[in-house]
Amino acid sequence: MNVIDKETAAHTAHTELEAGLRARIRGKAKPVGSLGRIEDLALQVGMVSGTLRPDLGSAKILVFAGDHGLTAEGVTAYPSVVTREIAKMVLAGSAGINVFARASAIDVVLVDAGMLEPLPPHDFLIDRRIAAGTKNSNVEPAITPDECTQALEAGRAIDAELSGVGIVGYGEIGIGNTSAAALIAHAVTGIDLALLVGPGAGAPALGIDHKRKVLEAVLARANLRDGDPRQRAREALRQFGGFEIAMMAGAMTAAAAARRIIVVDGFISTVAALAAIALRPETRACCVFAHCSAEPGHKALLEYLGARPLLALDMRLGEGTGAALAIPLVRAAELMLRDMADLPGEHPA
Amino acid sequence: MNVIDKETAAHTAHTELEAGLRARIRGKAKPVGSLGRIEDLALQVGMVSGTLRPDLGSAKILVFAGDHGLTAEGVTAYPSVVTREIAKMVLAGSAGINVFARASAIDVVLVDAGMLEPLPPHDFLIDRRIAAGTKNSNVEPAITPDECTQALEAGRAIDAELSGVGIVGYGEIGIGNTSAAALIAHAVTGIDLALLVGPGAGAPALGIDHKRKVLEAVLARANLRDGDPRQRAREALRQFGGFEIAMMAGAMTAAAAARRIIVVDGFISTVAALAAIALRPETRACCVFAHCSAEPGHKALLEYLGARPLLALDMRLGEGTGAALAIPLVRAAELMLRDMADLPGEHPA
Repeated sequence: MNVIDKETAAHTAHTELEAGLRARIRGKAKPVGSLGRIEDLALQVGMVSGTLRPDLGSAKILVFAGDHGLTAEGVTAYPSVVTREIAKMVLAGSAGINVFARASAIDVVLVDAGMLEPLPPHDFLIDRRIAAGTKNSNVEPAITPDECTQALEAGRAIDAELSGVGIVGYGEIGIGNTSAAALIAHAVTGIDLALLVGPGAGAPALGIDHKRKVLEAVLARANLRDGDPRQRAREALRQFGGFEIAMMAGAMTAAAAARRIIVVDGFISTVAALAAIALRPETRACCVFAHCSAEPGHKALLEYLGARPLLALDMRLGEGTGAALAIPLVRAAELMLRDMADLPGEHPA
Repeated sequence: MNVIDKETAAHTAHTELEAGLRARIRGKAKPVGSLGRIEDLALQVGMVSGTLRPDLGSAKILVFAGDHGLTAEGVTAYPSVVTREIAKMVLAGSAGINVFARASAIDVVLVDAGMLEPLPPHDFLIDRRIAAGTKNSNVEPAITPDECTQALEAGRAIDAELSGVGIVGYGEIGIGNTSAAALIAHAVTGIDLALLVGPGAGAPALGIDHKRKVLEAVLARANLRDGDPRQRAREALRQFGGFEIAMMAGAMTAAAAARRIIVVDGFISTVAALAAIALRPETRACCVFAHCSAEPGHKALLEYLGARPLLALDMRLGEGTGAALAIPLVRAAELMLRDMADLPGEHPA
């Protein structure tokens, strides 16, 4: 087949799969539509996995950790050393993400994407350190072009090891990363920076207004060139960091290529998804947005993406905690599609 | 101690426990308040279980099934025989509730509270049939006073077998039971009946207006006496049925006495909780409201109870499906309280 014939065949297969999935969901032993958003999720699971009877295999949560040179400007409530403290708790199994994941028997793996100091080897640690934290983006680009490429590639390589994992939750740790995320989100979407700046883990000692002013200065310093979304995303990752956001974005693009369900956590993870979608638009179809975080910019960003999050629990911890709570919903959708009884005839509407 | 001293001591212990739990939740390794509603849930779990380090044990979903004589009046889209068909699917493990519960490894047990025909014995069937369906409440009371007492007692007896189960989800099957539930809810709360009448599993062939008119006629026929909430709840259960609602209410009162977490599913289960709370007000403190159903009366009822449901997924299947999705959130709250790391010092707000 030539390229056009191949595209037509792919489009026909896609349309047929969707029609088949809709009929299958409609024909389940329940009033039509009575499982609400779980039915939408089942349709998505079926489309991503390419089958009427999906078997997603296991679920895993990847927590990407990195440090940020911009913390030198007083934009955070906590010092960078806290990134490492939380990362150690994750490896010890006692952080928020561990207990949330344990509630649904989901494995958690920590990725060191570029913390200030390395951690000792550990069974649940993937060491993909690009550098000892990013540079201060108020002074210079946070990441070099080479480092940005390395981070994206490392993300893809991490995904390549996820054989048998059909559901991946993406969380993060990184003091300073709401600043980087707000800047990337602004650069890619054009949403007013002021709407995207919030307290993060806590208001900095100098206040949110200080954080806002610093981010405006960083934006002016970076002086981003115009470009298509792909160019803008790469440029924003490079200018603002961090390693954990870039690596997560790379992992998400590879997960989409491997047809995994991408469970996006909160504000930072959504920004990584935004970058991943800019780099590889097919990623969007694989994204399940777990929850609407209490971080104010998250809502605006979800609206920009046309994403309706599954949960709204006023959470703002990060680490993947929202993703952990959404994964059982994805599993319910998968099992509904695969294992729930069908009606003998057509079900009345 | 005399009665007043005992009450004072209990009140002091209660206040001390609450203060201890709040301090413990605040001292976890996270920004204060950053786990949002899971923190509220953790406080509730701690208060119900009476400890700073709860171990709720296992979770179970009880699905109460019963038939309704009022279906003779054309208030449902499906005939009563469908109750049995769904009940058989539950025992076969292929109903909606089974796949949702399987997603979180929760056991499901079916309770025959009074279906038209009995089912053959089965490992996951509890036979507590009061009668072969209720009477037609448009003609006479749905349940006799003796049957009502029996149903409540059977519910308590079912709870007594739940040793080691700290989280119980309550679902139901019963063609016609949104009608009974709307009438009970009106009788106990005084909410306008019109607000409480919805399509249930599907609009009846004669339309929702017909359903509304029939329910108004039933209400006029019943001619409920005034009384305190306890008397009104009992009278409403007796006048309108059904066996599954009364038995569920009885089970919930016993669960509260045994300090279990009561995970309330949708509209019908919330009405059972309303009755249970009227019968035994302490039940309220143990109730977690899983989701806001798409059945329109549910929202009004939740507001009446001052309950903020955890999920809003436009579901309206019943069977306990919403409860199944909320149980992992309860588990996350339990594990957060029990196993998440504490901060070394006091955490900044």
